[in-house]
Amino acid sequence: MTEEELLEQLFRTLTPLSGEIICGVGDDCAVVETADRWHLFTMDTMVEEVHFSFSYFSPYEVGRKLAAVNLSDIAAMGGRPRFALLSVSLPKIEEKFFKEFLDGLISKLQAYQTELIGGDLSRTESRWHLSLALIGETAKGGAIFRSGAGQEDLIYVSRPLGGAAAALELWQQGIEPPAPLKKAHLDPEPEIALGETLARHQLASALIDISDGLLLDLYRLCKASRKGAILFSEKIPVLPEVFEAPLSKPPLEYALSGGEDFALLFTVPSSNVKALKHLWPGPLYEIGRIIPEQGLFFKEGERLRPLFPSGFDHFEN
Amino acid sequence: MTEEELLEQLFRTLTPLSGEIICGVGDDCAVVETADRWHLFTMDTMVEEVHFSFSYFSPYEVGRKLAAVNLSDIAAMGGRPRFALLSVSLPKIEEKFFKEFLDGLISKLQAYQTELIGGDLSRTESRWHLSLALIGETAKGGAIFRSGAGQEDLIYVSRPLGGAAAALELWQQGIEPPAPLKKAHLDPEPEIALGETLARHQLASALIDISDGLLLDLYRLCKASRKGAILFSEKIPVLPEVFEAPLSKPPLEYALSGGEDFALLFTVPSSNVKALKHLWPGPLYEIGRIIPEQGLFFKEGERLRPLFPSGFDHFEN
Repeated sequence: MTEEELLEQLFRTLTPLSGEIICGVGDDCAVVETADRWHLFTMDTMVEEVHFSFSYFSPYEVGRKLAAVNLSDIAAMGGRPRFALLSVSLPKIEEKFFKEFLDGLISKLQAYQTELIGGDLSRTESRWHLSLALIGETAKGGAIFRSGAGQEDLIYVSRPLGGAAAALELWQQGIEPPAPLKKAHLDPEPEIALGETLARHQLASALIDISDGLLLDLYRLCKASRKGAILFSEKIPVLPEVFEAPLSKPPLEYALSGGEDFALLFTVPSSNVKALKHLWPGPLYEIGRIIPEQGLFFKEGERLRPLFPSGFDHFEN
Repeated sequence: MTEEELLEQLFRTLTPLSGEIICGVGDDCAVVETADRWHLFTMDTMVEEVHFSFSYFSPYEVGRKLAAVNLSDIAAMGGRPRFALLSVSLPKIEEKFFKEFLDGLISKLQAYQTELIGGDLSRTESRWHLSLALIGETAKGGAIFRSGAGQEDLIYVSRPLGGAAAALELWQQGIEPPAPLKKAHLDPEPEIALGETLARHQLASALIDISDGLLLDLYRLCKASRKGAILFSEKIPVLPEVFEAPLSKPPLEYALSGGEDFALLFTVPSSNVKALKHLWPGPLYEIGRIIPEQGLFFKEGERLRPLFPSGFDHFEN
C-alpha cells in the first residue's frame, strides 16, 4: 500500500460535522466558508535528505522552496495566499543557517503578499523537518476543484515541464545543472496569478498543480472528476535544457513523471477558450482532452496507447 | 541564546503588512480579523524522544496529546477550536500504529468539536515528527491576550499543577506513575470551556496556558503586560499524588517549573471576581497578584523573595 493510498483510506473515514466545510481531505487545500469568503488551508512538510539536501540547496533556497511548494497548493485552488505558520525541527541552533532559511522563506512569501504570522521551533536528532501551513482565500464559491472536468474539456499546462527532475538527476550524477534547470528545482514560481485568473473568471472546470509528475497529477484530476484523458504526446512542453543535458532517460519522461514542476494543470470547456486567451495573454500549452472513459491514453497518430502513472501500484477507481 | 530568544529575535523583524492581522508572533495564537469574527491560528510540533517516547506513550495517546497541546493554545486565547491540519513524518508505514495514532488524535479533537480537514504524510529517517495546525475563532474583539494584565489584578490557575512533570520523572526512574499523574502527562484536558467563559464575559485581563511551567509562563504574561507578580507560595495548588510519589525534588518545584500542565493561568481585575465565581462555578485557584514593578516574587510571611524562572539565561526586559 502506498502512502497516498494509506492516507486516503484513513482520512476517508472522516465525516464532516460542520456545514461550513466545503472540501476536506482530497484536494490541494481544505476549503471552509465564512460570512464573506472561502478560506483555504494547506500544510506541507519538507524533510532533509527526503525532499531536499544541503549538498545542492542553500538554507536560503530551502526557505524559498518550502514557501513555493505550499503557495502552489493555494494556486491549485485558484486562491490568493494570505498567511503562513512555520514549524521547524532542527538538530541544533545554527543561528546564521536558520536566519538564512527564514530570510529565504519570507522573501518568497512576501513576493506573493503572504505574511508569516506564527512559528514554532523544536529540536530533533539530525535532519531538518520543516512544516508550513498556509491560509488563503477566494470569493465565496470561487475555488476550482480537481473534480470538475467535463467531457471534451481541453487540458492545459502552464509552462514547460521536466526541469526539476532533470536537475536532481544531474546533481545525483555529480554534474552541475544549467541555470534554468537549477531554477526549476530550487526556486519554482507558484502560479498564483494564473490560478486567480482562472478562478475569478470561471475559466477552468478542474485545476491541480503538478507536484508528482504530469501523469500522476492528471490521474488524480481525472479520478476526482470520474473521467479519463487523451494526451497528445508531441504537444507536451518540455523545458529545452532537458534535451541538452546528459540524462539517463528520454526528455519526455522527465516531463511526464519527473515531479516537482509546480506548473498548473487544468481543464477548460471549449466554449471558454476564447475568453482564456483574452484574459491570460501569456503562454499556455494545450496538451490533450478529457474523455468520458476512465484511463489515461497517449494519442500517437491514430493509435491510442494506455498510460500508467508511476507511483501507483494499481490504476482503477 | 535559547531557542525562545532566537525565535523572538528573528520573528520580531516581521512587520505586519495587513490591517487584518490583530496579533502575529508573540501570543499563543495568531489572530486575524474577517467580516464577522476573529480567526485564531496556531501550530505545534511533537518530536519522538524529544517531546514524547513510545516507551511510555501508546500511539493512541500520542495522538491525544498532540491534539491537547494545540487545543490548549486555542483555550489560551479564549477561543473555540474549529479545524485541524496534520503533517506527519514517519520512518516507515506501520499501518496499525499510524491508525491508532490517528484514532487518538481524532477522538481528542472531536471531544472539542474540532475537525481534521487536511493531512500530509512523509517519510523520515527514524523518529516520528508530528505537526498539527489548528484554526479557531472568537467573536470580533473577543480574544484575551497575554498583554492585558493590570496593576493589582488577581492571578488564577485553573487546576492543580505538577502532575505531568512528576509522571515523567517517575518513568525515567523506571517507576509506573499513579493514574492521576499518568493522565496529567499523557492526556491533559485543554481548558476550552473555561477560556471561552473568560473571553465571552470579558472576565480576564490576560490569559496564557501553562506549557513550560507556572513561573516561566507567568514570566511571559508579565513581560507582555509590562508588569510583575507576587505569588503566595502556600496557595499554589499541587496535584495531591505529587506529594506521595518518590520524587527527587520538593513537590512545589514540579508545580512551579515542571511544565506540560496545560492549565490556564490568567489575571482578573478585582471588580470581576464576583462575576467570575458566578459564571464559572468550578474550582479555581487564586495564587497571587500583579504588581507594577517588573519581576516575579514569592511572598513568604511578610518577606518578598525574588524568583527566577528556569529555562531562561537571563531575566530582564
